[in-house]
Amino acid sequence: MEKEIYLDNAATTKALPEVTAAVVDALENNYANPSSLHRFGLKSEKILKNSRKTIADYLGVRSEEIIFTSGGTESNNLAIRGITKAYGNRGRHLITSPIEHSSAAELFKALESEGWQVDSVNVDRGGHVDLEHLINLITEETILVSIMQVNNELGTIQPIKKIAETIKEKNPLSFFHVDGVQAFGKIYSNLSQWPVDLYSISGHKIHGPKGIGALYIKKGTNLKPLVYGGGQERNLRSGTENIPGIAGLGEAVKKLPQLSTAENADQYLAKKRKYLLNSLQKIEEVVINSPAAGAPHIINFSLPGIKGETMLHALENQGIYISTGSACSSSKKGSRIINACGLSQQRSESALRVSFSLCRK
Amino acid sequence: MEKEIYLDNAATTKALPEVTAAVVDALENNYANPSSLHRFGLKSEKILKNSRKTIADYLGVRSEEIIFTSGGTESNNLAIRGITKAYGNRGRHLITSPIEHSSAAELFKALESEGWQVDSVNVDRGGHVDLEHLINLITEETILVSIMQVNNELGTIQPIKKIAETIKEKNPLSFFHVDGVQAFGKIYSNLSQWPVDLYSISGHKIHGPKGIGALYIKKGTNLKPLVYGGGQERNLRSGTENIPGIAGLGEAVKKLPQLSTAENADQYLAKKRKYLLNSLQKIEEVVINSPAAGAPHIINFSLPGIKGETMLHALENQGIYISTGSACSSSKKGSRIINACGLSQQRSESALRVSFSLCRK
Repeated sequence: MEKEIYLDNAATTKALPEVTAAVVDALENNYANPSSLHRFGLKSEKILKNSRKTIADYLGVRSEEIIFTSGGTESNNLAIRGITKAYGNRGRHLITSPIEHSSAAELFKALESEGWQVDSVNVDRGGHVDLEHLINLITEETILVSIMQVNNELGTIQPIKKIAETIKEKNPLSFFHVDGVQAFGKIYSNLSQWPVDLYSISGHKIHGPKGIGALYIKKGTNLKPLVYGGGQERNLRSGTENIPGIAGLGEAVKKLPQLSTAENADQYLAKKRKYLLNSLQKIEEVVINSPAAGAPHIINFSLPGIKGETMLHALENQGIYISTGSACSSSKKGSRIINACGLSQQRSESALRVSFSLCRK
Repeated sequence: MEKEIYLDNAATTKALPEVTAAVVDALENNYANPSSLHRFGLKSEKILKNSRKTIADYLGVRSEEIIFTSGGTESNNLAIRGITKAYGNRGRHLITSPIEHSSAAELFKALESEGWQVDSVNVDRGGHVDLEHLINLITEETILVSIMQVNNELGTIQPIKKIAETIKEKNPLSFFHVDGVQAFGKIYSNLSQWPVDLYSISGHKIHGPKGIGALYIKKGTNLKPLVYGGGQERNLRSGTENIPGIAGLGEAVKKLPQLSTAENADQYLAKKRKYLLNSLQKIEEVVINSPAAGAPHIINFSLPGIKGETMLHALENQGIYISTGSACSSSKKGSRIINACGLSQQRSESALRVSFSLCRK
């Protein structure tokens, strides 16, 4: 069989062997319900507690500020919808960007149709949020700003600290949610220092299992749940805890690089990115869509005149798997994100995304 | 080490070896995102499609009537909340029973506080719904009736066919949701013949993985989603599909007994139940709380004067794991379900649940 090269890690990743082992152990040996009162249940509760602590420690926050969800999409929905349900009496104004993942974008559309006022902050051609515009948009009525840290198609990194400080300066009562799904474990973050109130992560983007994610909820942020029931996860996410998924996510986080300062961000991935960027730039027809200083694992480029999907299938015949953009919004009309950045329709329709793994094999 | 006996299968079950194998295969080999356009993504899409068909075939419904969720709690929430969001303009009246699982009961409480009129149908001492009372409760304003098929604490089986027909006769526009979590694979159901509109199932109650469930949505029932995003699962449940969980659930369903007629319901479990019931009845102090003709896998009994939790811990010291009631609402005030059936507080506080596995080792 030909060799296969998987370069679609922003869509999803392969589970690490340690992750699979943890999932299997929970399925076969530690399968009790953590809500059960017997000691077999306590073993499951311990797995839950340990994984929560691993994630909290990695993010530099407290265990009780982490709750588990079924994935990044649910984390984003719980954060955004949860704020509107809990603080709707304080104001009816929400702010987001035009290049958010569909799990935020589609929810904001729904909220708009329900009567919420939703404003979109301008972005430049690289997808960076216009801070001046953001300041102008924030009013006393603004209860939530939601911005993703790393864009899933372009790899654009938003200056989250600056955005957070800008929001809190203009309206200290406004909450700030960050979709960290593509940033978590890939670039530097500092939730203990930055005034971020909510931060979404997903298991399957970091070589953890699918069907599991988490939401950081800063102490003092009182969400209302999406799902009611047995009161698990501090009553914010009812349902028997997905212990195999939670155990696997914990293992995946243990294997993440330590990005404790902005400087020691993952050199390995950055080197890979630079190498591919240099190689691509040698091809005359290639136009790079990603900003120069983007996330280490995502490069977006176009071969104007060639449909992205055509190139994708040509490459898959060579055993190379890449994508035209977000797997969650594969579209023949080009990329919604690239369109929103003001790049040409031709570039949008021919866009290709290459995304790396953080595994060091 | 002492031998351990796990008799808490209504709380959760151990994954079957075939289930674990399917989960591992999806984590390690078929990890692509089913929304990806390349052929590696298509392999995941095929797993998704096959599992959906397995479940649909088992239930006797169409593949396109099954969507995957993160579990029974989410299925119940999506069904109930989804109807209120989609049909709220038709009426504001909902009916449920006082012995539903907390994933329905707590949601109905929330809906009531949001202004919905929620009525509770009477049940007898065995937990059976009073059909006359149900008929009286249904009005032109009733958009939904939600009743569980098998009670998770008592094992009470509701006459779903009769209830469904009663509802449709009184108000054909009313939807009927059945929480089938404790019934699926344990007792006879016939969704192709019974006028049931929505039916919830859970993976981890049938030796499948935790964190996965499904909802049957009869064609013509137009729910609104709880979670917005990439439009997966016919736009009713966005988020990257949990392929390992879905693959595992499919395998678990393949191993379920064929309960194609009411008569051939699982003889093995019924025999186990009868044996335990006979043995328990030989002990003078024991009072059986479950109805005589309950589900084959659940027996609830009391030893009046001895707190359920005390007995639970005494038994765990012998390596026997049982529960005092629902793991999702472990409470020291006794069982909400048993209280609702009108049994004494003493019986409620001393209640114990033994629940069997359907595995034939």
